[in-house]
Amino acid sequence: MSPLHKYKPLYEEELKAVDARIIALGEGRPDLIKSLLSHIVTAGGKRLRPIILILCAKMLGGKSKLISEMAACVELLHTATLFHDDVVDGSKMRRGRKTANELWGNPASVLVGDFLLAQAFGMMSDSGSLEIIKVLSHTSSILTEGEIKQLMHKADIKTSIEDYIDIITAKTAELFAACGRVGAIIADADEEQKTNAGKFGRNLGISFQISDDELDYFADENSWGKKLGDDFREGKATLPVIHLYKVISSQKSAVAEMEKLFSGNEELRNEEEFRKLRSLMIESNSQEFCRKTAIEYCDAGKKNLSNLPENEYSKALEDILKFSIEREG
Amino acid sequence: MSPLHKYKPLYEEELKAVDARIIALGEGRPDLIKSLLSHIVTAGGKRLRPIILILCAKMLGGKSKLISEMAACVELLHTATLFHDDVVDGSKMRRGRKTANELWGNPASVLVGDFLLAQAFGMMSDSGSLEIIKVLSHTSSILTEGEIKQLMHKADIKTSIEDYIDIITAKTAELFAACGRVGAIIADADEEQKTNAGKFGRNLGISFQISDDELDYFADENSWGKKLGDDFREGKATLPVIHLYKVISSQKSAVAEMEKLFSGNEELRNEEEFRKLRSLMIESNSQEFCRKTAIEYCDAGKKNLSNLPENEYSKALEDILKFSIEREG
Repeated sequence: MSPLHKYKPLYEEELKAVDARIIALGEGRPDLIKSLLSHIVTAGGKRLRPIILILCAKMLGGKSKLISEMAACVELLHTATLFHDDVVDGSKMRRGRKTANELWGNPASVLVGDFLLAQAFGMMSDSGSLEIIKVLSHTSSILTEGEIKQLMHKADIKTSIEDYIDIITAKTAELFAACGRVGAIIADADEEQKTNAGKFGRNLGISFQISDDELDYFADENSWGKKLGDDFREGKATLPVIHLYKVISSQKSAVAEMEKLFSGNEELRNEEEFRKLRSLMIESNSQEFCRKTAIEYCDAGKKNLSNLPENEYSKALEDILKFSIEREG
Repeated sequence: MSPLHKYKPLYEEELKAVDARIIALGEGRPDLIKSLLSHIVTAGGKRLRPIILILCAKMLGGKSKLISEMAACVELLHTATLFHDDVVDGSKMRRGRKTANELWGNPASVLVGDFLLAQAFGMMSDSGSLEIIKVLSHTSSILTEGEIKQLMHKADIKTSIEDYIDIITAKTAELFAACGRVGAIIADADEEQKTNAGKFGRNLGISFQISDDELDYFADENSWGKKLGDDFREGKATLPVIHLYKVISSQKSAVAEMEKLFSGNEELRNEEEFRKLRSLMIESNSQEFCRKTAIEYCDAGKKNLSNLPENEYSKALEDILKFSIEREG
């Protein structure tokens, strides 16, 4: 059983308040906004970011109403990014459902994404805490910069592993870091605890993203929420691809073939090519490399947790960390 | 001579700092961001929002470095909106130059717009003033909501005049209101002064937008920075259109013709139809109605100014207010 389900009683109440808060944003507002808000709440995402914030805050003794407010805020920041990402990538499906841009068009997705961002900033400023405002606005700068870097490197299989880690840190892990840190701030934790909670979030985020990239090639198709090979078809230079390209660098014809595959249009990247690439990734230990790298970040996250209070919340956080690399989907 | 040019010595120094601040955002960042930032600075916009903020602050005795910081912040908020607007409208030209989406593509415009928003929020939070953060984050919520309402009413010539005023207030005038209020906050003004500076900005913004909508049909083409009839070709339900539609409501065939013209595709809205509609607007006093309405807001703005200190800065603000209705382009 997924630890998210197992530990539900630890965060359920706050998470319900998060959903209610998001739906309430539609009150008295145009129907278009209402529809898109309900699309978010019913989309069935993991809600990993608000859960991490809630658990970190409660692990450190946090009790205030700010927990669910700021948990809603990070979920809105994340969702705004998804809306804009789907426009940028021209994505039609997400989590087995049509994307917002597919249902309501790009203009609505761009503007409602902006609306969600503005609401998230409004919630931050309502927190009345300059410390929280600074962490979250800084994070959102890094996030958008990460998106831009990703856009520039999207199909660049020559991206170094270092640059890859930089990009996923900026576009994914920094928001998890902010969840940890803001949770600790709400709980009035000391500076060392805030730093550890932040680092824990960052390591968890990196580990999750690497696993996500690996699972797009190697997941069990029944438990994986989406079709295998989405990243492949979009021609994304994810870690297994970057690693494989590095390993085969001395084989001229293999290099040329891979470059052609990722620089050409989507039709080139068919089912047969997907299977061929996957076999090559196994032979070249690219899958193993991804797993090993994810485990490194997972271990670093465990170390961060060991510097934080031991209780049912930290136990849940450790299990979620393990889940980031052990999940099948 | 435009009062913006005439009063340049009153705001020149701070405005230079605004440009420098915007360019500095590109330091150490991807080339794509650098190019788009320099596109903004060289685009030759009026810089009306930062100028209003600077003049309001200095009228009330403000001297701090925050003036140019917050002036840069409102210009970024505005520019981010323009980037996203041009994507939403599919615009190819702005101020006689290719738009960012035309030059760098929609994905870059969406993401760099997000980057600018995030940077603007970062600047707010660096101000360290919860009052400023609240005003500006609240304004940016209203702004995005206004954009969404506009998207929904874009071609709806049945929009009431009240709704039209609501929409332009949200999407344009509230940011001017924030410029006035934030200027006053920086100057440590009292509550009444802050309220008057905010109201002045709002009235100026409404007056400017109504004039803009009127000038799209009636400007002197030589002094107007863009081609006449842009709004018409895009099928926008602006004030002269809404008023005309209201006036002819008893004439069945004229109503049907106008509805067809604005609901159909762009090819219908050719040069001949533009001239026909313009003549009708003059006959039906739609141009006059727009002018009269703009003057009402201009007068209200003057009244707000009369409650604020009288000096060279308030004199400049009054001239800019007059300019909003007297300009030919």
